Amino acid sequence: MTVPHDSMANAIRALSMDAVERAKSGHPGMPMGMADVATVLFTKYLKFDPSRPDWADRDRFVLSAGHGSMLIYSLLHLTGYARPTLEDLKNFRQLHSPTAGHPENFELAGVEVTTGPLGQGLAMAVGLAIAERHLNANFGDDLVDHATWVIAGDGDLMEGVNHEAAGLAGHLALGRLNVLWDDNKISIDGPTDLSTSEDIAKRYEAYGWHVVACDGHKPAEIAKAIEAAQADPRPSLIACRTIIGYGAPKKQGTSATHGSPLGAEEIAGTRTALNWAHEPFVVPDDVRDAWLEAGDRGKSVSAEWDKRLAASADRAEFERRMKGELPAGADLKDYIAGLIANPQTVATRKASEMALEAINAALAETIGGSADLTGSNNTKTKAQQPLTRDNYGGRYIYYGIREFGMAAAMNGMALHGGVIPYGGTFLVFSDYSRPAIRLGALQRARAIHVMTHDSIGLGEDGPTHQPVEHLLSLRAIPNLLTFRPADTVETAECWALALAQADGPSLLALSRQNLPQVRTEASDENLSAKGAYRLVSARAERKVVFVATGSEVHIAHSAAEPLELEGVGCDVVSMPCWSLFDAQPAEYRADLLPEDALIVSVEAGVTMGWDRYTMVRGLRIGIDSFGASAPIEDLYRHFGLTPDAIVAKVKARLSEER
Amino acid sequence: MTVPHDSMANAIRALSMDAVERAKSGHPGMPMGMADVATVLFTKYLKFDPSRPDWADRDRFVLSAGHGSMLIYSLLHLTGYARPTLEDLKNFRQLHSPTAGHPENFELAGVEVTTGPLGQGLAMAVGLAIAERHLNANFGDDLVDHATWVIAGDGDLMEGVNHEAAGLAGHLALGRLNVLWDDNKISIDGPTDLSTSEDIAKRYEAYGWHVVACDGHKPAEIAKAIEAAQADPRPSLIACRTIIGYGAPKKQGTSATHGSPLGAEEIAGTRTALNWAHEPFVVPDDVRDAWLEAGDRGKSVSAEWDKRLAASADRAEFERRMKGELPAGADLKDYIAGLIANPQTVATRKASEMALEAINAALAETIGGSADLTGSNNTKTKAQQPLTRDNYGGRYIYYGIREFGMAAAMNGMALHGGVIPYGGTFLVFSDYSRPAIRLGALQRARAIHVMTHDSIGLGEDGPTHQPVEHLLSLRAIPNLLTFRPADTVETAECWALALAQADGPSLLALSRQNLPQVRTEASDENLSAKGAYRLVSARAERKVVFVATGSEVHIAHSAAEPLELEGVGCDVVSMPCWSLFDAQPAEYRADLLPEDALIVSVEAGVTMGWDRYTMVRGLRIGIDSFGASAPIEDLYRHFGLTPDAIVAKVKARLSEER
Repeated sequence: MTVPHDSMANAIRALSMDAVERAKSGHPGMPMGMADVATVLFTKYLKFDPSRPDWADRDRFVLSAGHGSMLIYSLLHLTGYARPTLEDLKNFRQLHSPTAGHPENFELAGVEVTTGPLGQGLAMAVGLAIAERHLNANFGDDLVDHATWVIAGDGDLMEGVNHEAAGLAGHLALGRLNVLWDDNKISIDGPTDLSTSEDIAKRYEAYGWHVVACDGHKPAEIAKAIEAAQADPRPSLIACRTIIGYGAPKKQGTSATHGSPLGAEEIAGTRTALNWAHEPFVVPDDVRDAWLEAGDRGKSVSAEWDKRLAASADRAEFERRMKGELPAGADLKDYIAGLIANPQTVATRKASEMALEAINAALAETIGGSADLTGSNNTKTKAQQPLTRDNYGGRYIYYGIREFGMAAAMNGMALHGGVIPYGGTFLVFSDYSRPAIRLGALQRARAIHVMTHDSIGLGEDGPTHQPVEHLLSLRAIPNLLTFRPADTVETAECWALALAQADGPSLLALSRQNLPQVRTEASDENLSAKGAYRLVSARAERKVVFVATGSEVHIAHSAAEPLELEGVGCDVVSMPCWSLFDAQPAEYRADLLPEDALIVSVEAGVTMGWDRYTMVRGLRIGIDSFGASAPIEDLYRHFGLTPDAIVAKVKARLSEER
Repeated sequence: MTVPHDSMANAIRALSMDAVERAKSGHPGMPMGMADVATVLFTKYLKFDPSRPDWADRDRFVLSAGHGSMLIYSLLHLTGYARPTLEDLKNFRQLHSPTAGHPENFELAGVEVTTGPLGQGLAMAVGLAIAERHLNANFGDDLVDHATWVIAGDGDLMEGVNHEAAGLAGHLALGRLNVLWDDNKISIDGPTDLSTSEDIAKRYEAYGWHVVACDGHKPAEIAKAIEAAQADPRPSLIACRTIIGYGAPKKQGTSATHGSPLGAEEIAGTRTALNWAHEPFVVPDDVRDAWLEAGDRGKSVSAEWDKRLAASADRAEFERRMKGELPAGADLKDYIAGLIANPQTVATRKASEMALEAINAALAETIGGSADLTGSNNTKTKAQQPLTRDNYGGRYIYYGIREFGMAAAMNGMALHGGVIPYGGTFLVFSDYSRPAIRLGALQRARAIHVMTHDSIGLGEDGPTHQPVEHLLSLRAIPNLLTFRPADTVETAECWALALAQADGPSLLALSRQNLPQVRTEASDENLSAKGAYRLVSARAERKVVFVATGSEVHIAHSAAEPLELEGVGCDVVSMPCWSLFDAQPAEYRADLLPEDALIVSVEAGVTMGWDRYTMVRGLRIGIDSFGASAPIEDLYRHFGLTPDAIVAKVKARLSEER
């Protein structure tokens, strides 16, 4: 190509500053600062084919510093992706435009993961890199042989999750992971030395990373650093010394370029300084052609790969897995039939382990793990071998005490495709991984969060470890399926639903304590799929409907018995998933929770939110305070969650109403 | 003292294993492993007076590895604190006993902070150490001159928040902070090398810490390492190589000792191995006396301090601040009167800054900060100087991109006493700091979270940055006051309430966008104190009550107008704080939200939870999905949150009901 590097990089700079200016909103500094690095990466090293953004063996590129979204929009546009178009760039940050404020994987092919919440892009990239090595171990170099590239900013490296992610990547020796750090020494508040004195290179070396530095405005140096990273077997941090807002004559190098349009005058000055004499949004043909040529580099490579795929004995299985289609058996019907035949009283965490034995045998694509609570979360099945630096084919990850890093890595693995990750911790620590649970829901990642010890039922560990508000707060996250199964059968049903939820995450809240099997009758359908169902019908005239979840279902059932004996008919509704129930037709919902009955919710958590089902005429039984440290029986008694206490409350309410 | 070190340490080991055995629950391994280190610290170096646990100038000791709670319970018991008694130790982990599963500051004097959720103890210790240096700068060596000590485990160091906390401590050169790391190479899943390959010492050096190592079972080595830490001006990490479960003949050095009772046989073996021939819970008199003597070391020191305090010109102010009493002016009445006189249309984040100008002038004890969003959170007032390693007297902390670390440090500062911390980030990133917000609520810490950009009203940054489920999920946390003020006046009122909430945290959700001042009439009382109040009374016959929060109050008000013109009378209720409203008498609540009106909630977030107020007969207007990237006006229109759209919905509902 005869077009000089500077012109190609300046096309990014110009598009970025012009789009931000037009939107009157956005972050020009980062794209302008990292334009040189991105140009070198995309024109020389990144393996991609803009005509096939879903090509399975493409390199994965993550813009962890997602506020610099115009960088990736410019790159996708210039290299020839179908979107964003020039019009899309002009509609940067406008309603219904795919060029959102931060890059969103569900808006644009070529955006691998959704970024913006700092630290998570890099942490998801660790998951992308894990998935790559794992699939490589499964399918060989012919089909899976790509790298993961990240552009990260100071904020990404300062967030706590960076410690977890980088530590995990170092431990697993993910040499295909290369992070280009935009070392511009500027954050929003000003120079980074306002808030940090860290030697970042030294910290990364402490994790077992390879660290190399370059001047992020000198193409040859950048190339040399990238090649060193490629050659090194460890994950690499490439410190790119850059000037934020490079080219803006008055503002470059300052936080003034970070998050605001440059303004007409500064933009004019930048055009002069960069010798870029083109109107806004105009990229001259020679520069356009050079960029398209860079985008075409991958065409022959992807065509070669097609041939290898066509010739591969693994083709069908590889394609099935990359499409995210489930194999036979994923509905767990046979396994559930076995449970009905042989009822068992076990904790739902144990029931989950039992279900996983069936799942992991039927699905080659699951990769389990736990944040250092393997024995408590019951996440490891017998045949699972650890996934380690020496055995990427393993299907179980010892994530360490890294809940957030685990959940973010799971998002990355899910979005890579070819694997279905699940990982465990205690439900109370969903607070630690919550930012990644949310981002997974937004970006439609099939990650399955296994959250055990889901109430005061965990007993003596006390209020620091007892979730009370967590179920509600998780149910409030859009596009997340929050399940709380009541026994072995529901646990299996919820697992089947979680696996089938291809476009979003699920979370299973599971008990530490043993629970009787309440489902003992065979059913043709997965009853949990409707979110709630009538477990028990009133024998006497129905006056009460108990609606409960998880470990409180059998308690509600026990409370129904003495009431029935007194002529107070009670339905018992089990509601393992609110959002699935709320999506049912009004008729179904009204049939389960009829207006002529007293609706009594029973759940060992905050009553907030249960109003939805009980407010017209009902009673909410739960825990509206922190828990306490004591044996489980004492706690259930203390918090009024025994059948006796529930019966008393229901009778008091019925007599009040008389 | 003539009692050998080993006997004193073994008293801890025996009490710990006996209490866990009796409770049939708990973690013996850590107390047994760290007994030697703790014995050296508590008998020789820690400055404390068990007869005066609230002595302001005591060293602060934090058991970050809170699962090893029997370590601190043993130490407090042995050194002569009033509680825990021997009976308390026997009631370890039982209902109503102060010896909870994890150490809780509200149960026992001597427990400075509540620990258990890993990483947070150390992160709070950073806050304790900041408060100490700040108060030292305010009041001098005579009154404030103490250290902060932490015992931390591998889990504490692996959690992401450790990166944020250690980075901040290194940046601020908190030399009085010394962390004793229980380097036992064991976590729950097994050897730590299952999940980490990190060189921890090197990482800490990268943060600017002093790192020293010792054999954690050799008292002389431990003492030498502690003295090196005391002498070094940097924060110190003391790597104590220990054997988990030290003394248990078969299980020591393995994860089997971590989280389960040792069992009768192993306990008998331990007694033999340690040469501790005493019955369970029996500590021989000579060992008891030696421990009490160690506890008495501080008596003369605290008495000397009393004299200095008595002689100090600052005594009254120092005592006021340490008691957490507010000075005159904290109710902001004069400031609010000024607002009524001069109504202003500003964002509530700006209104918060204006209130802070008044607060920071009246209260010397506030320390502000932001997680790198100072200009966006409006948290810095004009006179505030940065708190830096060179100026601990500063009252503003550039926390960096460390939301969780900031919130945890704020908890530590609040629990140290003498300061009231507040810190800012975007509301969506409350997910990042949520574990610390929760722990602050549990441990009753007056930390004030300033959360701006509190809805889709932030506009173009899009769904990654737009909170929708956050208000509900925060309201669900017990003992947290979640405020969402509507204008300048409510913002000031909510700030006054947050300051006055001495035994718990508060969170202010504030708008990015400008809001008209809806409160224009003078009031003698703080109307926000009841959580909700009638802002506007219907002129026509009342058929509708709008209940709204924050930026939607003026929108609801605008929706009321056209309805009034059509004869549909509308009250407008502003509800800045759910939990304060829920605590009002039923009469008050029924008067505001009467059964004979259609209750219409309007809030730019999930409608879940609003059922409580609207379900009997009402309508919920909100956003039950993720947001989108667009200019604010487009978003409010898109999501149906304009007065026109609201009027249409209300009229449709009213006509349905006819």
